Amino acid sequence: MEEVKLLGAITSPFPYRVEWALLHKGIKYEYIEVDLKNKGPLLLKFNPVHKKVPVLLHGGKPIVESLVILEYIDETWKEKPLLPQDPFERAKARFWAKFAEEKCESTIRTALYSKGEEQKKAVEELQAALKILEEELSGKEFFAGESVGFVDLVVGWFPCWMPVLEAVIGLKILDADAFPSLHAWGERFLKVPFIKEKLPPPERLLAHLTNLQK
Amino acid sequence: MEEVKLLGAITSPFPYRVEWALLHKGIKYEYIEVDLKNKGPLLLKFNPVHKKVPVLLHGGKPIVESLVILEYIDETWKEKPLLPQDPFERAKARFWAKFAEEKCESTIRTALYSKGEEQKKAVEELQAALKILEEELSGKEFFAGESVGFVDLVVGWFPCWMPVLEAVIGLKILDADAFPSLHAWGERFLKVPFIKEKLPPPERLLAHLTNLQK
Repeated sequence: MEEVKLLGAITSPFPYRVEWALLHKGIKYEYIEVDLKNKGPLLLKFNPVHKKVPVLLHGGKPIVESLVILEYIDETWKEKPLLPQDPFERAKARFWAKFAEEKCESTIRTALYSKGEEQKKAVEELQAALKILEEELSGKEFFAGESVGFVDLVVGWFPCWMPVLEAVIGLKILDADAFPSLHAWGERFLKVPFIKEKLPPPERLLAHLTNLQK
Repeated sequence: MEEVKLLGAITSPFPYRVEWALLHKGIKYEYIEVDLKNKGPLLLKFNPVHKKVPVLLHGGKPIVESLVILEYIDETWKEKPLLPQDPFERAKARFWAKFAEEKCESTIRTALYSKGEEQKKAVEELQAALKILEEELSGKEFFAGESVGFVDLVVGWFPCWMPVLEAVIGLKILDADAFPSLHAWGERFLKVPFIKEKLPPPERLLAHLTNLQK
């Protein structure tokens, strides 16, 4: 067994996807907390292009970008697959992961950093994207079906970050009445044993987002 | 053999990736030109979320997003693989494809749509990203090594679009002295037999980009 290490940051959403995947597959790893305000030699060496977390080190070789890492983990440790086996179903999972990445992350950032009209517009855009995810999820336990899969891990940061974001900006985004499937999914997701093992401390997120907003 | 159809648009860069992949693998398909100014029922039915091309129809089932389609093609028709077999090498190819998507497309768009300082800044940002691709390519015939692979198809629109973009905005972007590897790669890429089979007509691109800029 080659050594597995993960560079992460407690307040960054994206390393959690990777940790959940490793926990799901039962892969032993060493977690290394990185200071994103003061980027050290480890991050600059292993992710010189983006200088971001997560970085997965497998036998000393770096893999970066959380979605790329999830695919790597699924191809390297094939037990308990994250992606379905059928190419068409795999394509659908990759489509939704890409959709969530492209349509939600930047609007969440804008919702946090802006004020007034710009903020209101970002929240509306985010809700329009969430509405599409709500429809996709309708009638299912998880995005992957009856258990957690690729897309669930990709959007798994929503139920952790969203309530904190709502508190910080003072606007409701994921209303349970408007988003019943996403809301129920979030509660279900946070109760999954391997997810519960590694969740961000809400007070750290609150301090972090409050600080970012300033 | 299930029927393969591709919805594309002659002046859109992204369907070319998919056509090149199909030509490379020797898969028979029907190409359907879509009018992006007047989106018809086919596009709205098969890509209701983004309403964009390319859409691959395989046995009537739609696959959308060009990178997702490339993965689908590689998983469905395994001969002449686009991605390497080794998970670490696959991760590297996916990393560079994502990098090119994220760092080049939006700056190319800004370079086309803006003027003055904003345009100059977009061109500089684009060149900074191209510099990183230049380094990655250094010493190699193609991004994938000795023949065309996944990343080559993803960035394959550069040698077609870049000279036209430069002509339209009146600024040099991909200077042969500053980007010798990318420049030589572009010339090599355009001579590959299955690439040559399907290239956008330069006069159509020129008319299209000139029109977009207005």
